[in-house]
Amino acid sequence: MISKLINNIVKTDAPIVVGLDPMLSYIPEHIQKEAFARYGETLEGAAEAIYVFNKAIVDATYDLIPAVKPQIAMYEQFGIPGLVAYKKTVDYCKSKGLVVIGDVKRGDIGSTSAAYATAHIGKVAVGSNTYVPFDEDFATVNPYFGIDGVKPFLDVCNENDRGIFLLVKTSNPSSGEFQDRLIDGRPLYEWVGEKVNEWGALSMDGEYSNVGCVVGATYPEMGKLLRSVMPKSYILVPGYGAQGGTAEGLKPYFNADGLGAIVNSSRGIIAAYKKEPYLSKFGAEHFADASRQAVLDMIADINGAVFGK
Amino acid sequence: MISKLINNIVKTDAPIVVGLDPMLSYIPEHIQKEAFARYGETLEGAAEAIYVFNKAIVDATYDLIPAVKPQIAMYEQFGIPGLVAYKKTVDYCKSKGLVVIGDVKRGDIGSTSAAYATAHIGKVAVGSNTYVPFDEDFATVNPYFGIDGVKPFLDVCNENDRGIFLLVKTSNPSSGEFQDRLIDGRPLYEWVGEKVNEWGALSMDGEYSNVGCVVGATYPEMGKLLRSVMPKSYILVPGYGAQGGTAEGLKPYFNADGLGAIVNSSRGIIAAYKKEPYLSKFGAEHFADASRQAVLDMIADINGAVFGK
Repeated sequence: MISKLINNIVKTDAPIVVGLDPMLSYIPEHIQKEAFARYGETLEGAAEAIYVFNKAIVDATYDLIPAVKPQIAMYEQFGIPGLVAYKKTVDYCKSKGLVVIGDVKRGDIGSTSAAYATAHIGKVAVGSNTYVPFDEDFATVNPYFGIDGVKPFLDVCNENDRGIFLLVKTSNPSSGEFQDRLIDGRPLYEWVGEKVNEWGALSMDGEYSNVGCVVGATYPEMGKLLRSVMPKSYILVPGYGAQGGTAEGLKPYFNADGLGAIVNSSRGIIAAYKKEPYLSKFGAEHFADASRQAVLDMIADINGAVFGK
Repeated sequence: MISKLINNIVKTDAPIVVGLDPMLSYIPEHIQKEAFARYGETLEGAAEAIYVFNKAIVDATYDLIPAVKPQIAMYEQFGIPGLVAYKKTVDYCKSKGLVVIGDVKRGDIGSTSAAYATAHIGKVAVGSNTYVPFDEDFATVNPYFGIDGVKPFLDVCNENDRGIFLLVKTSNPSSGEFQDRLIDGRPLYEWVGEKVNEWGALSMDGEYSNVGCVVGATYPEMGKLLRSVMPKSYILVPGYGAQGGTAEGLKPYFNADGLGAIVNSSRGIIAAYKKEPYLSKFGAEHFADASRQAVLDMIADINGAVFGK
């Protein structure tokens, strides 16, 4: 599956992913109003607003980008109707040729991780039928359980040509509380990175592994180190833009082949219309055009700073 | 919320929780058949079988037990219909007076953890209405992100009188891969335990904190240490029975007041009918009675070994 993601990145010349993490507060008034008129001020109404919002942004950007990353928490908070909107979003994005990274951060003991892997990147049998429950292309996975919790995902990656991104160094301010602690003189994230490299060898797809990792844009020095620890793993980089990561700081996340990293922006793209320079040019009515412009600006920013093009 | 759990434990004299983690292979043929007859061999059919199975087990055991712990992965693997069965299970258990521990192991950066907290133990506003999305009493949470990822859960615990259990030392064989690594001479799980104790002080409810922890029954020496590190935190103990934890080994997980731990069994209770001594006495037809007997046996085993009663 990583080769499909790489193909999409090369084709669009855009090492970026759009985070579809819709808060109700990001969704323009007129979309909320229309959804509530049809479904009431209900969970179904919120879910409809989210889906209509996502669809408009995808329609306005899909030709420019290789992938999307819906954050399932933002849907889960609207209960079952929210998760229906998540699934519809996954399906719609796939129908547009986008790679879908389900940002689900699951992880548990073996048998439970197997169920999560089935849910998100696998197939489930019911009697003599087989179903693909959520059907993302990639899932993000938490490594705290060690190999028992990761192996079931690897098995499904291999059976089903899918991929995962394992958390190594997260973008948030307190990520160092445990992740930076020194073990035999080296930080925990580096030990996790070494395991990612080792586990990644179990699911190769061309030059890269189906086992990628998450390293926040907010810690470029660590990104540099981790790039060398996991040369075959794609780095999914959150934290660009709203969280403080800069394009200049992204250089060390890429390999010499110009590949190896994909940078996420959520708020910065989907809520672009709420902030200048997009607010006065597009406004809430043309929010999707604002997202398109924000995507173009992000690609130019990263390609300029990282590749000098 | 921890005081409600303690009340239920004292009332039933049973420091146990039944893990409602239904695999299709645990569900008797006749229940699957009936569900498939109504809904086909579909995700809806699987979900119906799961709910009917759960309901029968809850009906046969609710007067004996304080709490249940549905593992959401087992439902998520059947997609949206599976999650509908999860929600129906939560609601049904609550209607029977049981405390519901949603075993969801969520955790992310701050804003995303806030959405997960809302989803599972909080409330969400849609226009002028407010909804409780999944409405569990407790949720399990992964600490890898540090305080940023935990604080939103603490806030919701305080606003909404709910609780969480943070992963400290998990029950699986490879849990030591990262959790046992030494930092300044002490294992990571001990450092996490200290943080749980510190964070727990932010949400007290009587003598105990709404912030509990997860420590596997498979590591009793570590359980003993962690008991002293987190004296005010209830320990949710997985790994008894099927995974190898013994009743004798559970002693150190309890405080001198006879409280402080609640022991989970999933397979050992819900699939009791598949193994002796329950198989020949009850069989698949009377699977719920087998579960009741297995609950009685588990309570006697733990109360005997731990409290000599």
